[in-house]
Amino acid sequence: MLRRVDHVALAVSDLNASIEHYQRVWGLTLSHREVVAEQGVEEAMFRLGDTYLQLVAPLDADTPVGRFIQRRGEGLHHIAYEVDGIEAALATAREHDLVLIDKEPRRGSRNTRVAFVHPRTNHGVLVELVEIPHN
Amino acid sequence: MLRRVDHVALAVSDLNASIEHYQRVWGLTLSHREVVAEQGVEEAMFRLGDTYLQLVAPLDADTPVGRFIQRRGEGLHHIAYEVDGIEAALATAREHDLVLIDKEPRRGSRNTRVAFVHPRTNHGVLVELVEIPHN
Repeated sequence: MLRRVDHVALAVSDLNASIEHYQRVWGLTLSHREVVAEQGVEEAMFRLGDTYLQLVAPLDADTPVGRFIQRRGEGLHHIAYEVDGIEAALATAREHDLVLIDKEPRRGSRNTRVAFVHPRTNHGVLVELVEIPHN
Repeated sequence: MLRRVDHVALAVSDLNASIEHYQRVWGLTLSHREVVAEQGVEEAMFRLGDTYLQLVAPLDADTPVGRFIQRRGEGLHHIAYEVDGIEAALATAREHDLVLIDKEPRRGSRNTRVAFVHPRTNHGVLVELVEIPHN
């Protein structure tokens, strides 16, 4: 069902400051940057092996990532898995009684289709399922 | 400096229950399981693409992972990066004024040499640097 880790997402307050940190300290090269208004974030991606590090910064304080940072501070936010078909992955999650944040896929960055699974029934880990467009 | 994400570590209370969850719900196959007494944990690894998901369970409550779970609950714990040479990676981290948990490398699971970098100077993310033995 899971093909690979598509990305590991880190919640950050100031996207430019964190991009600079990951470039200067860890020597990474920025691959992609995009505002995803539907999720209330701006994202920056760094390729690392067959996965990405993703920095996600809230567009304002009253967004899921904004509230996460107010509550817990900056840090690890979610893990995203590439799946072959997102409807099938959502059906499997439903069969196993996982609590879904998204009952239907929605648009993610890079023209992906994504759906989030709630941490409550997944040992505290927020999961994003990602279907990558192949064309 | 960073070659790839070696693993993403998830803190869990009950290792057997979480292994069962990742096998049954997410369809993963267990690759490795090991007690690392020096770190006060038992670990389980699932291969996923060129990285691993790692479950870490505390050997008792008064360990770093035990205290993490008491404070924040189960969830994303740290991200581990493979580096070519751990001494050079530690020297780079020191040059950039990162706070090190380990000033010298110590033994990790799978005969790796590892060192942890404190979240405080790394935008809230606990990092493990990992040198893999090549022989």
